[in-house]
Parts: sequence; C-alpha cells; structure tokens
Amino acid sequence: MAIDITTILRISLPHRPKSLSRVAEAIGDAGGVIGEIQTLSIGLANSIREIAVETSTPEQLDAIAGKLWDLEGVAVLERRDRTFEVHLGGKIASGARHKVDSLAQLRDIYTPGVARVSKAIVKEPALVDQLTSIPHTVAICTNGTRVLGLGDIGLHAAMPVMEGKAVLYDQLVGLSAVPILIDTKDPREFVDTVTRIQATFGAIHLEDIRVPECFAIEEALIERLRKPVMHDDQHGTGVVALAAVLAACRMTGVDFARAHVGQVGLGAAGSGIARMLIARGARQVLITDPAQAAVDRMITFGGTPATFDRIMGECDIIVLTTGRPGLVKPEMVRKGQVILALTNPEAEIEPELALEAGARFASDGRAVNNALGYPGIMKGALLAGASQVNTAMKLAAAETIASLAPQGEVVPDPLDPDVHTKVTEAVRLAAIVTGLGGTAWRGSHLPAP
Amino acid sequence: MAIDITTILRISLPHRPKSLSRVAEAIGDAGGVIGEIQTLSIGLANSIREIAVETSTPEQLDAIAGKLWDLEGVAVLERRDRTFEVHLGGKIASGARHKVDSLAQLRDIYTPGVARVSKAIVKEPALVDQLTSIPHTVAICTNGTRVLGLGDIGLHAAMPVMEGKAVLYDQLVGLSAVPILIDTKDPREFVDTVTRIQATFGAIHLEDIRVPECFAIEEALIERLRKPVMHDDQHGTGVVALAAVLAACRMTGVDFARAHVGQVGLGAAGSGIARMLIARGARQVLITDPAQAAVDRMITFGGTPATFDRIMGECDIIVLTTGRPGLVKPEMVRKGQVILALTNPEAEIEPELALEAGARFASDGRAVNNALGYPGIMKGALLAGASQVNTAMKLAAAETIASLAPQGEVVPDPLDPDVHTKVTEAVRLAAIVTGLGGTAWRGSHLPAP
Repeated sequence: MAIDITTILRISLPHRPKSLSRVAEAIGDAGGVIGEIQTLSIGLANSIREIAVETSTPEQLDAIAGKLWDLEGVAVLERRDRTFEVHLGGKIASGARHKVDSLAQLRDIYTPGVARVSKAIVKEPALVDQLTSIPHTVAICTNGTRVLGLGDIGLHAAMPVMEGKAVLYDQLVGLSAVPILIDTKDPREFVDTVTRIQATFGAIHLEDIRVPECFAIEEALIERLRKPVMHDDQHGTGVVALAAVLAACRMTGVDFARAHVGQVGLGAAGSGIARMLIARGARQVLITDPAQAAVDRMITFGGTPATFDRIMGECDIIVLTTGRPGLVKPEMVRKGQVILALTNPEAEIEPELALEAGARFASDGRAVNNALGYPGIMKGALLAGASQVNTAMKLAAAETIASLAPQGEVVPDPLDPDVHTKVTEAVRLAAIVTGLGGTAWRGSHLPAP
Repeated sequence: MAIDITTILRISLPHRPKSLSRVAEAIGDAGGVIGEIQTLSIGLANSIREIAVETSTPEQLDAIAGKLWDLEGVAVLERRDRTFEVHLGGKIASGARHKVDSLAQLRDIYTPGVARVSKAIVKEPALVDQLTSIPHTVAICTNGTRVLGLGDIGLHAAMPVMEGKAVLYDQLVGLSAVPILIDTKDPREFVDTVTRIQATFGAIHLEDIRVPECFAIEEALIERLRKPVMHDDQHGTGVVALAAVLAACRMTGVDFARAHVGQVGLGAAGSGIARMLIARGARQVLITDPAQAAVDRMITFGGTPATFDRIMGECDIIVLTTGRPGLVKPEMVRKGQVILALTNPEAEIEPELALEAGARFASDGRAVNNALGYPGIMKGALLAGASQVNTAMKLAAAETIASLAPQGEVVPDPLDPDVHTKVTEAVRLAAIVTGLGGTAWRGSHLPAP
C-alpha cells in the first residue's frame, strides 16, 4: 500500500497528560502514519499543534478528522496538503548570482561593459565556458508524453516533475537546470527544436518521453550534439538499478559476473537497466517484453530473448519494470533469487511476499531513486568537458553508488551530499580516462554544490 | 569619448601624507577617472589599496600603470578587469526556491508527491499558474544577429547580454528569466522554435534580432501566442525614449501634443520609438530612414515621411537612432529644439555641442536605459494575466517613468526599486482597463521583487 498524501492537521487539544497520546491513537486507528509534530502555542487550557499525517487516500484523512472531532476537547482547526503547499509559486526560480548595487556595477554586467565580454568571446570562443552560465546549465527537455506512471498528461502537467528534477540538480550538485516543455510528439520536430536551442546549455537531460520515440530522440541528439545528452528514464534509472543489484549481490554473496540475470519489461527504464546489466558483464542477460521491437532492439545491445517463465525459472537476479502489479506469484519465486520489482506504486511482487517465498533478497521501486544518479552523472560529465555520457561513465556512477550503500541497504541516502560528490568525481575521471574529457579548465568556474 | 573599461589596480604605497594624492594625480594625468578606493591593509610603512580606474582604452591603462611605477615607493601589484571579473562563471543561476531537508520533503517535491500535483493540473489546467514557476518565468529569446552595436556576433557571444537582462529581471522585479539562444536566422524557424517551447514560459522577451526579421518574428509570435511577447529593442527602447522625451518637454516647457516630432532612423529602436511618439499623440511625427521598407512600414503606423533636412528644419523634438556618429552638425540645430541623439557609444551630436548651437535640451544614449522599461512592463503584464503587451500598457509605462525623473534629469535611476514597482502597477492596471487582464488571481503567488 502506497502512502503518498501528507496532510498537516492543525488541532487544538487540552494541554494535559495523555491528551496527545489519545490524538495519536485516533490517527493510528484510522490507518494514518504520524510524521512531524510541531507545537505552535501552549495556552492555559489548550495547546495548538500541527501534526503531519500520512495517508494513502483522502477518504482516510476524512476518517481521521472525524475521529479527532470525536475526542473530547479536540478541534481540527485546519487541514493543509503539504505537497501542494511546497508547490505554491513553483519550486524553482532563476536569477542573478550577484546583486547589482551601484550604477558602476550595472555598467559592468549590462551595457556598456558587457560589450567587451561579448567581443572577447567572438575573438576567443572557448571563453564562453568561463564567462557565461552555459557550462553549468542543463536543459531538462520533455514533451510530457510519459510522465511518471501517469502517461501522456501534457506539457503543463509535466512541469512540476521537471521542476523537481531541477531542484535536485541545484541542491545536490550545484547545477542550474532549466525545464523546457516541447510541444510536439514528432521525434524529428523534437530533435530539431532541441538542436536549435542547445547552444544555451552545457548538457541536455531528456525526461518523460514515451517509448519508442525516446530512443530515436536520444540517439539523434547524441549523434548531433558534442555535449552530454542523457534520457534519465533510461540511463539514470539504469545506473541506480544496477547499483542496487550490485549492492544486493554484495549483501547476499551472489557473484554478479557469474550470475544469470533477467530483465522483465523493456520500456525506457527496463531498456536502460538491461543495457547496464549487460555492460557490467553478467554471465547472460535474459530479456522479455510484449513488444517485439523492444526485444529486437535489446538483442543489438547483447540481450538474450527468453520467455517470462524461463527468466523466473533460470535467473539468479531478476529486475522487473513491467507496469503490472502482482505479475509475480509467490510460487514463481525460486529459492535464493535476488528480485527487484520496480513498478510503482505497486510492485510486481511485494518484497515481503518474495522473501517468504524463498528469495534471498527482494526490493521494490522505493530502493531505486533516480535522484541518486543523474545529478552526479551530469555534473561529472560537465566538469570533464565530456562530449557525451558513455558507458564507462555510467558504470563508474553505478559502482560508486553501490559502494556507498550503508550496511543493510542497497542504495545510499539520496540527500547525502557526499554521495553526489563521489559520483561526480567518479564520472569525471571515467570521462577523462576514456578519452572524452574536453578542455581541462572547463569546470574551474562551476559553482560548488 | 566613451569610458567603458574599469580596472581594479591593487597598489602598494607609502602610508604617509600626500601619498594617495600623488597616486590620484598620476592617474588623472594619464586620463583615468577614479572610482571606488578600498584599503586592504595598512602596514607600518606601506598600505595596500585597490583603486577602480575607468579608462576608454587598454593603452591608457598601460600609461597609468607606467606613471604609477614611476612614483617613489609605489608598486602596482595586480590589475584586474572588473567587468570580466563579474562575468566569471556566468551572471545567472537557477535552482530551488526552498531547500529539501528531509526525505519527507523530497517525497513532496519529487516522486511520489509530485504525481498528485501533476494530476491536479490535468484535472484543473488553470492550476498551472499556482503550482509551477511558469507565470513568473520569461524566456529571453535571441538569434544573436544584432547584439548591441556589435552586429551578428553569434549565439555564444550574445549570451552575456541575455544574462545581463536576466539579472535585472530578477533584481528589479523578481521575475525568473531564462536566456534561449536560437540557432537560426530564418524567421519562420525562429517562430516555430519559440512556439514549440513557449508553454514553459509566462512571457516571451525577444532580444537582439536584426532588422527586418525582428518585425516579422514579433508579429507572428504576438499573433500565435496568448501571452505577452515583446521585442525589447523596439518597445522597451520606445517606452524609455518616450519617457525621456516627455520629461524633457516638461523640463523645457514644450507642449508634446502640439509638437512636431521627428524620428531619424527606423531600425528596431527607431521604429519602436516612432510608434510610441505617434501613439502618445504628437501633432505629427516625421520619419526618415535610408531603407524605404522601414519608412513604408512606419507609414502604416501613422508616420509621415520626410527628408532629414526637413526634420532638422521643422521639428521641435528630434530623436535620432541612425548609428551614424556626428551626423548632426551644429549648424543644423534650430534654436529651442529638443534633441535626443541616441546612437551609442558616440552620438549623432554631442549634447554639449547641440546646446551650444541653440538646442533647448539635448541628451545622448546614456539617458535612455532599457533597464527602466522591460522589467516592469513584463511584470505588470504577467500580474494582469495579459494576453499581450498593448499600446496602452506601453504608454502607461512611459508616463510613469517620465513622472519619476528627478529634478534636472529626464529619467529616474534604473536601480531604484520604487520605479519598477510603479511601472509594474501602471502596466498591470492598463492591461486590466483595456480588457487584456486574465485570471485575477494569477499573480497571487508571484514572488515579491
């Protein structure tokens, strides 16, 4: 059961012993999970508190509010949806790195001073990397055709997702990210549009574009542009899922290089994961998908087609990205398997069920958070001045993420800054070692994360 | 003579009386103008100071450095170009409005929470204005074909100018502005590209596009998009120039409504100014330009074609945007004229010369700073939810700017926040009064400047 609504309840309650415990009990009875509790004021008789309550449906919250009203002396003063609250006014903004305090400064950053800077770039084009924001700016490009699990919801509805990505680029690695909503479903028009505006950006992050268009779009842009281009749904997910697999192997004593690995589902995420599993050198990677074109494409990358039953029967490690909750029945699980059932919000098999059925390790999509991957990958690529994001860079990111998973977990905390610093550095070095590094000084003026 | 290089000289000099005055004298002797002086350290014998020195050429600075070295006990430790210094790493950045401090917050701004926000926008599309950054974000679109007085210098060299505009959007009115460099010289491709990405932005600011393409591009985008579109080189300049003209009239007792006005030069700026002069209701507006197409176009807006000689002979107010320094000889000036010679960095006639020759008022391009116009115009349009920037809004901006010019000046200080607040409000009201206002609540979540 996915818990994904957090509501702030502002309540007034008697300020005496057991008062809060009765409130907590009522919330729990109705199935709510309590988060933070803040005390706003304490009066002679009553205190006012804000309690964050997690529920899975709005109806559940109504039930909780009803139960609270039933308690003697308790009043629900306000209900606020915390998620909507943080979205008011949007989650991102862009602006000046330094404030302009005087006319002299205005003349430096604007006319007439700026003309000398422009002329310097005309004379020495490489200066663009030192004198503009371009090398620390990533365009997050989408056409909104496959947003989260929601499908083709359109450009405006996709914006909050793009802004979320941009927030994390800023906070985790200090990159500027600019959402670009592209109003076309035609891959050629999409590629043309990105190509026409790409000079503005150091790298192109593709996001939430449906299959199969996402493949053609990414390939064309990688071909055309001499800068990092990455479809995060494929490769960011691929990197983080591989990291989780490697950490799970380490935890359970499975030898990845000798393992038979299965990838069930070859959408954007599944394709990216399969490619990483193959690149990391599993003994074999069996693949399956209802779309023959997706299977054929993955064969060209080294996958071996198989039936779902064969994968369940033969593989030591199985990753599922099918969009089909409950696809895996407990009786299909073979003893000792490592199973990552990544479909959100409900997995192909709940980890608890898989473990009961004999799996050595099982996890669902919560273990694979893209925020662990793309920020450091892009930052490392930009710092290296890399002309693309190659397999070595992605593998370096995956190994690094896996190595930082704490005891008992398969991935580290995505908000740990140390993780992103290390991923960035690993990717940067991999770019240089594989000959993709550009001008060495490029990153010297990138802001610190 | 344009002074446009500011160099920070770090010098060591004896810490005793007259030491600094000798330094100042040497700088002045070589033609340098002294700006800020900072004391970094004071030792027993010597002090270290940083002196900002304005010169018009690098050679002049060499001469100053030489003269300083000649002074006893003085050493030039470092020379830094202040303009380049503020450009290092770029002038803009974008990122999170609120830091993500916990996994709970991460789940609000990113998956899974963000999915509920996206779904809400699907269900109620107008929520995009409350829940995303779109209504406070302006795209600054250019193809780099006419950057400042530098011409077609290309996309990357145009970037510092776009970043300068963005800095001022942020600082002066709290809008996010995102430069978009568009790699095409074909107006149709330009319009198509902007049309495909426009959903990302609340308004489109066009910048530094050459004549005549800029006209067709702006017209097509105004026609296609139901949001503010403004080519700043035309209309921002037009608004600020009209403000300066109105303030000059007030200062000199000229009645604008009865005045014969001349606009010499009908490039982007000249066209925008002519349209504003016509719209404000001068008795007649005489126009001239070497390009017949430019003249024909302005006739459709109500201009009256005339020769340059006739304009110089007949007009009470003359605005020149010809790109031809020294075009106006003192003997052409008629007694009592108001002359704005706006070509940068050297004007059609120096204000001092024009005044000597009998002009009642004269100014050059320094009086007309676009930073006074575009930020408040766009902010006002966005706050109103306006579907375009119409003439009433531009006139309201010009009148407001003119009204705020302090005694003896024709325009106010562009860094005065009060100016932008008032321009914003005047434009917002004009939009509403002329029926362009959109959803009234639109601006409720725009961040304050």
